[in-house]
Amino acid sequence: MEAHGLTLSLNTVWVVLTAAMIFFMEGGFALLEAGFVRSKNNVSIIMKVFVDLIVGVLAFYLVGFGFMFGRDHGGLIGLSNFMLRGNFTHLSLTVPPNVFWLFHTAFAVAAISIVSGAVAERMNFRAYVLFTAVMVAVIYPLSGHWVWGSGGWLHRLGMEDFAGSAVIHAMAGFGALTAAFLVGPRIDKYNKDGSANAIMPSNLPLAAIGTFVLWFGWFGFNAGSTLDATSPLIGTIAGNTLIASVAGGAAAMFYTMFREGRADVGQTINGILAGLVAITAGCAYVNMPSALLIGAIAGVLMIWATGWVELIKVDDPVGAVAVHGVNGLFGAIAVGLFATHGGLFTTGSFHLFGVQVLGTVVVSLWGAGATFVALKVIGRFVPLRVSKEDELLGLDLSLHGTSAYQLLGETVPVIPSTRRGEGAGGSRSVSQYLSARD
Amino acid sequence: MEAHGLTLSLNTVWVVLTAAMIFFMEGGFALLEAGFVRSKNNVSIIMKVFVDLIVGVLAFYLVGFGFMFGRDHGGLIGLSNFMLRGNFTHLSLTVPPNVFWLFHTAFAVAAISIVSGAVAERMNFRAYVLFTAVMVAVIYPLSGHWVWGSGGWLHRLGMEDFAGSAVIHAMAGFGALTAAFLVGPRIDKYNKDGSANAIMPSNLPLAAIGTFVLWFGWFGFNAGSTLDATSPLIGTIAGNTLIASVAGGAAAMFYTMFREGRADVGQTINGILAGLVAITAGCAYVNMPSALLIGAIAGVLMIWATGWVELIKVDDPVGAVAVHGVNGLFGAIAVGLFATHGGLFTTGSFHLFGVQVLGTVVVSLWGAGATFVALKVIGRFVPLRVSKEDELLGLDLSLHGTSAYQLLGETVPVIPSTRRGEGAGGSRSVSQYLSARD
Amino acid sequence: MEAHGLTLSLNTVWVVLTAAMIFFMEGGFALLEAGFVRSKNNVSIIMKVFVDLIVGVLAFYLVGFGFMFGRDHGGLIGLSNFMLRGNFTHLSLTVPPNVFWLFHTAFAVAAISIVSGAVAERMNFRAYVLFTAVMVAVIYPLSGHWVWGSGGWLHRLGMEDFAGSAVIHAMAGFGALTAAFLVGPRIDKYNKDGSANAIMPSNLPLAAIGTFVLWFGWFGFNAGSTLDATSPLIGTIAGNTLIASVAGGAAAMFYTMFREGRADVGQTINGILAGLVAITAGCAYVNMPSALLIGAIAGVLMIWATGWVELIKVDDPVGAVAVHGVNGLFGAIAVGLFATHGGLFTTGSFHLFGVQVLGTVVVSLWGAGATFVALKVIGRFVPLRVSKEDELLGLDLSLHGTSAYQLLGETVPVIPSTRRGEGAGGSRSVSQYLSARD
Repeated sequence: MEAHGLTLSLNTVWVVLTAAMIFFMEGGFALLEAGFVRSKNNVSIIMKVFVDLIVGVLAFYLVGFGFMFGRDHGGLIGLSNFMLRGNFTHLSLTVPPNVFWLFHTAFAVAAISIVSGAVAERMNFRAYVLFTAVMVAVIYPLSGHWVWGSGGWLHRLGMEDFAGSAVIHAMAGFGALTAAFLVGPRIDKYNKDGSANAIMPSNLPLAAIGTFVLWFGWFGFNAGSTLDATSPLIGTIAGNTLIASVAGGAAAMFYTMFREGRADVGQTINGILAGLVAITAGCAYVNMPSALLIGAIAGVLMIWATGWVELIKVDDPVGAVAVHGVNGLFGAIAVGLFATHGGLFTTGSFHLFGVQVLGTVVVSLWGAGATFVALKVIGRFVPLRVSKEDELLGLDLSLHGTSAYQLLGETVPVIPSTRRGEGAGGSRSVSQYLSARD
Repeated sequence: MEAHGLTLSLNTVWVVLTAAMIFFMEGGFALLEAGFVRSKNNVSIIMKVFVDLIVGVLAFYLVGFGFMFGRDHGGLIGLSNFMLRGNFTHLSLTVPPNVFWLFHTAFAVAAISIVSGAVAERMNFRAYVLFTAVMVAVIYPLSGHWVWGSGGWLHRLGMEDFAGSAVIHAMAGFGALTAAFLVGPRIDKYNKDGSANAIMPSNLPLAAIGTFVLWFGWFGFNAGSTLDATSPLIGTIAGNTLIASVAGGAAAMFYTMFREGRADVGQTINGILAGLVAITAGCAYVNMPSALLIGAIAGVLMIWATGWVELIKVDDPVGAVAVHGVNGLFGAIAVGLFATHGGLFTTGSFHLFGVQVLGTVVVSLWGAGATFVALKVIGRFVPLRVSKEDELLGLDLSLHGTSAYQLLGETVPVIPSTRRGEGAGGSRSVSQYLSARD
Repeated sequence: MEAHGLTLSLNTVWVVLTAAMIFFMEGGFALLEAGFVRSKNNVSIIMKVFVDLIVGVLAFYLVGFGFMFGRDHGGLIGLSNFMLRGNFTHLSLTVPPNVFWLFHTAFAVAAISIVSGAVAERMNFRAYVLFTAVMVAVIYPLSGHWVWGSGGWLHRLGMEDFAGSAVIHAMAGFGALTAAFLVGPRIDKYNKDGSANAIMPSNLPLAAIGTFVLWFGWFGFNAGSTLDATSPLIGTIAGNTLIASVAGGAAAMFYTMFREGRADVGQTINGILAGLVAITAGCAYVNMPSALLIGAIAGVLMIWATGWVELIKVDDPVGAVAVHGVNGLFGAIAVGLFATHGGLFTTGSFHLFGVQVLGTVVVSLWGAGATFVALKVIGRFVPLRVSKEDELLGLDLSLHGTSAYQLLGETVPVIPSTRRGEGAGGSRSVSQYLSARD
C-alpha cells in the first residue's frame, strides 16, 4: 500500500480509537454523577446517561449531524448529509465520512451528558428524553455549525475552539444552568432562611472511577480532535491536556487545604475536570506553561463558580455549571489570551481575543436561551419535575422501580416479579436482615 | 521504513490495542455479572471471570489455538501450531503470529465468560475451573475452526460471521443454556406453584460500569476483527456497532416504558448488549440503516427471550442466554438477510441465507450439546453445584471465605487470620456495629 | 506524506495512546487500594492517588524529567531539559520530545502510586504530599537515570530493564517497605502477643475493577515502552505480558486452593499483578514459555513474600512490597536467567546475570534508603502519621471531612454545610435509618 493510502488508514484507526475513548467517557459521566448524588437516585442518573447515548446517537444520526456539518446556509445552519447521505466534499475530510460522523457523534453525546448531572435527583425521565432529542438534534448542532461547520459565521470570523470548550462545554454548561433553574432546586437543598445544605455524595469511590474514566477519555477527546494522525500537534495537545488537568486539581486541592484545613475530594475531582474543560479549546494553540496556568486558574474559578451558583439559588448537584459552563467560557476566551499565534498576552493583538469573547458569549447565551425555550415547550406536554413524593422516595424506586444497592451480605431479597417496581429495595433487605438477627 | 513494513507495523499496533480492549471486556463481564447477582455471590462471580482468563488463556495457548487455527484435517479440526509452534503460512496472516494469537485468545476468553453469568450463584467453583478448560481447549476451538479456520467446512460453504455472533455468542449462549439447565435454578428462583421470583440485583452502578466497559471494548472486538488497519471497512464496522447498540437499548428501554410504565435499567443494559451481539456478525457486511434495524429487533428479541427462558424454568441470573445465545443466533442469520452482498432482502438470493441458517444452527447445537457432554463427564468427578447450605450462605463466604463488602464506615472488623475463611464477613461487622451502638 | 514522516506519526499515536492507558492505571491503583482497605479510609487512599498525579506530574515536569533524561554527568544524574527546555539530541528519540515526556511522566506517577498503598490507613496527608514531590522529583529520576538515562552507569554496564521491573517496581516497592516500616503498623494489625490480624477488605468488587484497569493499562505499559510502533517486538511483549499475568494468577489461585482449600480472591488478584510486575523487565527479551514460568514463580513468590512482610511486623495493607518490591527484584534478575540473548539458562553466560543482580539490588537499596532519608527529613516538619483518634475514626472523616459511602436507599443525610467535616458519615445515616424504623 502506498503512502497516501497508509495515511488514510492511520487517520482512520486513530480517530476510531479516540472516538471509542470518548464514548467510554459516558461511563465516566454516569459514575461520577451517580457517586455525587444520593443513592436513592443512582439508577436514575445512570438511566439519564443511557438516554444521552440511546436517544442522542439516533438524534444526531437522523438530524443533528446534517444541521451541524451539512452544506452551509447563510453561516447559520447546515442542510445536507442527514443519515450520512450525499457527498462530503465541502468538509475536506481527513478520514472517511462515517469515521468523521462517529467521532462527532461522541462529541454530541458528551454535550448532552453535561446537562444530565445538573438536573439530577428531580427531573422527570420523559421530559429528559425529549430534551435530549432536542439538544442533540437542534441546539448543539446549530451553535456547533457556527464554529466548526464549513461556512459557519463564527468560523469565518476566525474563532478558534480546538476541541470544544465553547462549542460543547460552555454551551451545554449554560444550558445546564438554565435547566437546573427551570427544574428548581431539590427539596432538601435550600432552607427557608435561604441557607444551603450540603447533600452528601453517596459513593465517592464510584465518583473517582468516573473521574479516571473521564480523564482517560479526555486524551482521546482532545488529541483525537486533530482527526489527523499525522498532525505535529498531537504531542502538544496531549501534554497540555495532562498539565492543565493536574494544575486544575492542584489549585482546587491546595485551595481547600489552606482555606478549609483539609483536602476536599469533591473539589479536587472538579478541579481536575475544570482544568480539562478549560484547556479543551486551547490545547493545540498554547505552550505548556500557559496550559499549566490555564488549568490552575480553572481550578480556582470552579470553586468560586460553585459558590456563585449557590448564591443565585440554583441547585446543581454535580457542579456541571461551575466545571463545564464557567470553565468552558474561560477556556475558550483564554485562547484569545494565550494562543502562540494571535493571543493578546503573546502577541499584543486584540483581534483574536475579541473574536473569542464574542463567539464564546454568543454560544453560551445560545445554550442557555435555547434550553430555556426547549424546556418551556416540553413542559407544556410533560411535567419537567417529578412529584414531591417521588422525589422524597427517590427516583430509582419511583421512576425505575428498583434500588441501586442491595449490599448486606446474607440477605436474600426475593420479591415476586409481579410486585417488582413497588419499591422494596434496600430498606426491606435491612429490616429482613435485622428481624432475622433478633 | 518502506510502505510494506509500515503496513505491518500499523496492523500490529491496531490489533494489539484492540486486543487489549477485548481483554478489558473481562472486567466488563465480571462487574456486570456481579452487579446483577446478589452481594453474597459477588466475589464468586468475579473469581469465575478470573478463571476465564487464568485457565482460559493457558488452555488456548496449550491446546485450543492449535485446534482452531492449525492446519485443517477434513474441515473439522486444526492440528498444528500448539503453543504457537510451527509455521503459519496456511493462515495468510496480516499480523505476526503472536499478535494473531493474542487477539484470538481474547476472543476465546470472551466465549467462556458468557457462560459464567448463567451459572452464577450456585455452580461449584472446581467444576467451573474444569469446564473452562474444556470449553476453551476443545469446544470453542472446534466450532471456531469450522467457521474461521483455514479449511473449515462452514467456511468453505461460505458462512460469514465477521466478529463472531455465531462462533462466540450463539455457541457460548446455548452452552450457557445447557449449563444453567444442568446446574438447575437457584433455590429462590422458582416457587412450588411454578411462578418465578425476581431476584434483585445487588449493585446496579457496578452493572453499569460493566456495561460501559463492554461497550468500549466492543469497538475493539468488532473493528479489530479486520486484523488489518488498512481495511476500508473499519469506519463501517465502528459506525454499525454504535448504531446497533443504541437501537437495541432504545428498543428495550421504550418497550419497558410502554409495557410496564417505567424505563427498566436491567432491560436497557441487556438491550444495548443484545444490539451489540446481533451486529457482531454483520457489522462489516450491512449498511447503517440495516444495522439500526438489526439492533432494534435484537432489543425486543432479548426481552421476549428472557421470558422464554423463565417459561422453560431455566434460571439465567444475568440473561446470558437471551443476550448472547438468542441474539447471536439472530445476528448471524441476519447477515443472510441484510448483507449488501448476497443478503436475501438486498439481493433476493436465498443462498447466503441458507448457509447462515445452517451454520448458525449447527454451531448453536454444538455449543449446547458439547457443553452437555462436558458437564456430564465433569459431574462424575466433581459436584456441579454447591450444597444447599453453601448456596443459602452465599458462595463468597462458603467457597471463598470472604464477603464482597464491608461498607459501614467506622466498623473495624478485625478477624484473626487463623480463622479467616470461617465466614464472619459482612454479617459480623453489622452486628458488631449494632451492638456497639446499643 | 512520505514514509519517514508516517513512521514518526505512527510512533506518536502509539505512544500517546499507550501513555493514556498508563495514566488510566492510576484509576486502577486507586480502586484496587480502596477496595483492599477499610471503608473508613477509602476517600483517603483515593486522595493519595490524586496526589500522585497532581503533585507527581508537576514535580516531574519541573524537576524530575531533567534529572532522569537530561545530559549525563558522571553516569549519575541528568542536568538539562527541565520543563522540556533545551535540545534532546542525546536521547535519539523516536517520538517528539513532548510525547517522550508524556510517556515517562506516566511511568513516574506509577512509581509513587506503588508506595501509596503500603502506607494506607494511617499516613498523614501532608507528609504524603511532600514525599510524593521528593520521590518523583529526585528519588525515582536518579536511579531511573542510572538504568535508562543516556549515559547512566548501570545502562553502560549493560543492565536490561525493558519496562521497569527494577526501575519502577523494585525501587518503589522497597521504598514502600521502608515507608510502611517508618509509619508503623495500623493500630489493629498486630496483637500484643505478636500475632497478626487479617483486616478485611472493604469492597472486593472495587478491587476487581482496579485489577482489570491495571491489567488493561499494562499492555500499554509494556508494549508502549518500545516507544516505536515499528518495533518487531510488540507482539512478543504483549503476548508475554498476557501469559505471565495469567500464570501468576494461576499459581496464586491454585496455591490457595490446595493449601487453604479455597480460591482466595485477594491472592489471585495479587498473583496476577505479581506476574505482570515480574515480566515487565523481560517482556521483550524472553520467549513465551519463559514468560509463563516467570509469571508462575512470581505468583508463589508473592504469597511467600506477603508472609515475610508479616513476619518482620511491617504492615502493608495492599501487598505492595510483595507484589512490586519482591517481584520487581525477581523480574529484573530473571532477565539475567531467561533472556534469549545473554541469559544464564539460555546461553550459559554469567555476565548479564551478574549485571542484573548488581543493578537490581542497587536500585532496590536506593529506593529503600532514599525513602528512609526523605521520610526522616519530612518527619521533622510534619508528622508522618495521623493521631490515634484520627486513625480509629478513619482518615476519610478525620482528614477529608467526608465518608466514602452513603448507601442506604431512603436515607436523606442533609447536613448543614457549616458542619461539613464533622463526620456524620455512614454511621449517622444508619442510625437515622434505624430510629426511623423503630
